[in-house]
Amino acid sequence: MKNTDLLGKVRDRFILREMSLSEILVSADLAKLGDVYLNFAYSLAQSVQSGKGVNARVPSKILASALKSSGLKKELPPRTSIHGQADAVEALSVYAWLKGIVTLEELVSLLSQRTDDPAEAFTEAMNETLKRLLAREC
Amino acid sequence: MKNTDLLGKVRDRFILREMSLSEILVSADLAKLGDVYLNFAYSLAQSVQSGKGVNARVPSKILASALKSSGLKKELPPRTSIHGQADAVEALSVYAWLKGIVTLEELVSLLSQRTDDPAEAFTEAMNETLKRLLAREC
Repeated sequence: MKNTDLLGKVRDRFILREMSLSEILVSADLAKLGDVYLNFAYSLAQSVQSGKGVNARVPSKILASALKSSGLKKELPPRTSIHGQADAVEALSVYAWLKGIVTLEELVSLLSQRTDDPAEAFTEAMNETLKRLLAREC
Repeated sequence: MKNTDLLGKVRDRFILREMSLSEILVSADLAKLGDVYLNFAYSLAQSVQSGKGVNARVPSKILASALKSSGLKKELPPRTSIHGQADAVEALSVYAWLKGIVTLEELVSLLSQRTDDPAEAFTEAMNETLKRLLAREC
């Protein structure tokens, strides 16, 4: 079976070389992929903690709360809906994964530390992602 | 950020050391994780092919068809529902990923070769998974 760097292909299609943080956060393509990515990561984190298989969807309110707590909400246009705010977290998360900034294992690790408080867990994940993203740009 | 082999933790919790093929196929824990795993892999494959972000759910009928074509259906109890047959494909797929038998990239590669015929794509993925699984057992 050939393994032809498929993640590279996805990266090349959906990530512009010079993509600003604001562009990432409103990318509809990244948000769609990010939705299934976060559901997978969150289900893994919940499964680790509960000791049984979990198939979880992350509520938009949780993601919107994390966006606000991490200070990222101000990067979005005014009056962006809760759904749009959740999309922004999904887009940034899968961007970080595609770029190799935060691996799936690292995200699951972060999320499984605070399964009692998912909004806090996603805030910490956003803070870490942002910190690494900005460190790469310097 | 510590990276404490979280996938290993998931593996240890949900995969018995000596798990037969029949046990894998009917594991409810693996099926739940496998559902979100396959949706993510399938969305990536569809995104690669279409050139836009896709958030896809894999229909149970497609997975049930792949189970039958790959000869795995006979490993399930008689009169297993379509949903139960789809669960079996999901369980085996995430088992193979957790065990390092088929990586996410390899699965996406297989699925993206036949996006015109998802049932055929999943059949090929199942055939390859099964071939590698049996090769490890010899």
